[in-house]
Amino acid sequence: MSLVVHKYGGSSVADAEKIKNVARRIVEVKKNGTGVVAVVSAMGDSTDELIELAHSVSDQPHPRELDLLLSTGELVACTLLTMALADLGQEAVSLTGSQAGIHTDTSHGRARIHSVDTARMLKELHEGRIVVVAGFQGISEDEDITTLGRGGSDTTAVALAAVLEAERCEIYTDVDGIYTADPRIVPEARKLSEIGYDEMLELANYGAKMHPRSIELGSVFDVPIYVASSFNETPGTLIHRIDGDADKRVMEDRIKVTGIACTINVAKITVRSVPDQPGVAAALFEPLAQSGISVDTIVQNTSEDRTTDISFTVSGTDLKAALAKVEELTKEIGYGALISEANLAAVSVVGSGMQHTPGYASRMFRVLADGKVNIDMITTSEIRISCIIREDQAQEAVRLLHRGFQLDEPDE
Amino acid sequence: MSLVVHKYGGSSVADAEKIKNVARRIVEVKKNGTGVVAVVSAMGDSTDELIELAHSVSDQPHPRELDLLLSTGELVACTLLTMALADLGQEAVSLTGSQAGIHTDTSHGRARIHSVDTARMLKELHEGRIVVVAGFQGISEDEDITTLGRGGSDTTAVALAAVLEAERCEIYTDVDGIYTADPRIVPEARKLSEIGYDEMLELANYGAKMHPRSIELGSVFDVPIYVASSFNETPGTLIHRIDGDADKRVMEDRIKVTGIACTINVAKITVRSVPDQPGVAAALFEPLAQSGISVDTIVQNTSEDRTTDISFTVSGTDLKAALAKVEELTKEIGYGALISEANLAAVSVVGSGMQHTPGYASRMFRVLADGKVNIDMITTSEIRISCIIREDQAQEAVRLLHRGFQLDEPDE
Repeated sequence: MSLVVHKYGGSSVADAEKIKNVARRIVEVKKNGTGVVAVVSAMGDSTDELIELAHSVSDQPHPRELDLLLSTGELVACTLLTMALADLGQEAVSLTGSQAGIHTDTSHGRARIHSVDTARMLKELHEGRIVVVAGFQGISEDEDITTLGRGGSDTTAVALAAVLEAERCEIYTDVDGIYTADPRIVPEARKLSEIGYDEMLELANYGAKMHPRSIELGSVFDVPIYVASSFNETPGTLIHRIDGDADKRVMEDRIKVTGIACTINVAKITVRSVPDQPGVAAALFEPLAQSGISVDTIVQNTSEDRTTDISFTVSGTDLKAALAKVEELTKEIGYGALISEANLAAVSVVGSGMQHTPGYASRMFRVLADGKVNIDMITTSEIRISCIIREDQAQEAVRLLHRGFQLDEPDE
Repeated sequence: MSLVVHKYGGSSVADAEKIKNVARRIVEVKKNGTGVVAVVSAMGDSTDELIELAHSVSDQPHPRELDLLLSTGELVACTLLTMALADLGQEAVSLTGSQAGIHTDTSHGRARIHSVDTARMLKELHEGRIVVVAGFQGISEDEDITTLGRGGSDTTAVALAAVLEAERCEIYTDVDGIYTADPRIVPEARKLSEIGYDEMLELANYGAKMHPRSIELGSVFDVPIYVASSFNETPGTLIHRIDGDADKRVMEDRIKVTGIACTINVAKITVRSVPDQPGVAAALFEPLAQSGISVDTIVQNTSEDRTTDISFTVSGTDLKAALAKVEELTKEIGYGALISEANLAAVSVVGSGMQHTPGYASRMFRVLADGKVNIDMITTSEIRISCIIREDQAQEAVRLLHRGFQLDEPDE
């Protein structure tokens, strides 16, 4: 029997009616002879409510305890969906992350999946049941409950699809696919019928509503991921391997990129006149990583006088903590000045068609310049060009780039 | 190091402030050099809210799923209390029923504890941590989460006190002990400083706010159970073995009983003219038990014409289901008539001093007769006499009996 893994996000199981709707959708698939493993997130805002509850009793909730607390949100959604399936006459069973055999490391709050013991899931599937798994969680070797971090249910779903060798992993959410840009910003944005893993990874890292780790995992295990709405039947977007097609697209459609991504709430820190010697960057960034502060773009200018300027971006939320940490560190190293700037954004153009093809970067800078958008920093990857700009110009920049790269024009 | 088990009910952990208050009380005990295992119930009404949620997606929630759903309520309270303890600088760890090694049978919704594997709890205690255990739940041999039924956290607490050989089990709740009668009905009711297991079991079965199974367990394993308020320092009631004292009380205090209990929402079913032959009672009550309908008082009248009348009481909530079941059964057996009556109550006088001492029953009937309270059924145990009366007379009957047995007069 063929098998698919479905994943339903918090907004898709936000109340009893929505849960019953999801149950009906799953039963339909099962009736057509396909086995289903459904992974669910916590209902609506319940994870935020639990976090708030934790902060009401403790300033710094212990990560191990927070994980056990947060894991209950997915358990609630998962048992309710199972009950709704049973109510439709469909045999179903809910499994906690631990019961589903999801073993992780011990990094509470951002655990990584080590292995999945599929025995219990396979037993239930063979007995004809729909298996409903609580997303976002696993169990460590210490037998403690761990969580995979925000959006971790996507990762759970793709991991299960990989180990169960499912046909594909279907992510059902409140948007009906991946767009060339956020449709709330660019009304003429078009839905992509397909996208490659690498492009999707760049889009996910730069603002699209998918968990980057799940895309990475899908890419490694070659799991086709289908993103669609849980509220209607509109065709969604298939994320899969399209290496072969990349060159074809370059030939046919030379100046098209796949999509425009945008991240807001970006802050920049610049450390001036850092001694230009080996180990300085490590001394600066290692302690930030240890404090759990995620650093995004890093730019280091070439130096003339044996000193250098290092600029990097962090989330605006982390700016205060990052500045405190850097100040402490730079005192040891010795430096000229520490400059920070908040309220920035990163806009990116993404497309595997950009590989080995000149002209994309200059076109991007021209579009932004014509729109009077000043570029603060630039970074590039093989298939992405990102510019740091002022946050209040971000939406306009996305619209300009969408038009500038002709993403509003239908494919041939 | 000496060890106590604390249990905090839902009202004691109903919000962040109350949880912090509980944390402070526990830390005080720990600072005095006593190890603490704390068992917690779900916050406030959260169990009822989860049940409501289940019924919003399914008319008949599957018991296995309902257990996993309900178990999350205790997990939330348990992790929050642990965070609050950590916030006071006290090392603490929360354990699910499964992590605490509580193994049960597979009867979802009313599982019984088979055994407790103390390894993890002992390890954490030896490392100086306060252990916070989610009450009301365990894990079955199928590795499924089970719950022990309403009030099951009391049972968890006494079971842990038994296996950990704790000095005693302290049940903290929103009342400050066991009273001679419900103080809301009888303002002059007095708090008992101590009570025997058997007497407490009768009181618990007939209306007092304790889980009868926990008393039974305490009696079997000889665990002293102290019931007190979590909101103040007023001395509570110690439930323990006082066999030796029973006779002494009989001598000194001949006509005193220990307390008056009252159960409302009682319904009675009478089956008339049942053939008086072996196996009829079994044929009647086995199917009721299988349908999960708990039958309380059973009275069978002696017969003259080879038929008999059987009367029994059930909870008013179960009346409709019980009647349907009995109707179906009696059609097979053959019977005269089926009569039912709702809105009844059971008032009981309880006291080990009643054993082998005449006069208690007649005194009870006299007190009720003088108060114009009609008695519908009577049942007795060694240390209890119960009368079924009209529900609207129950409060008055409790007050009359409390005065009639001189419970309002202070002990010598």
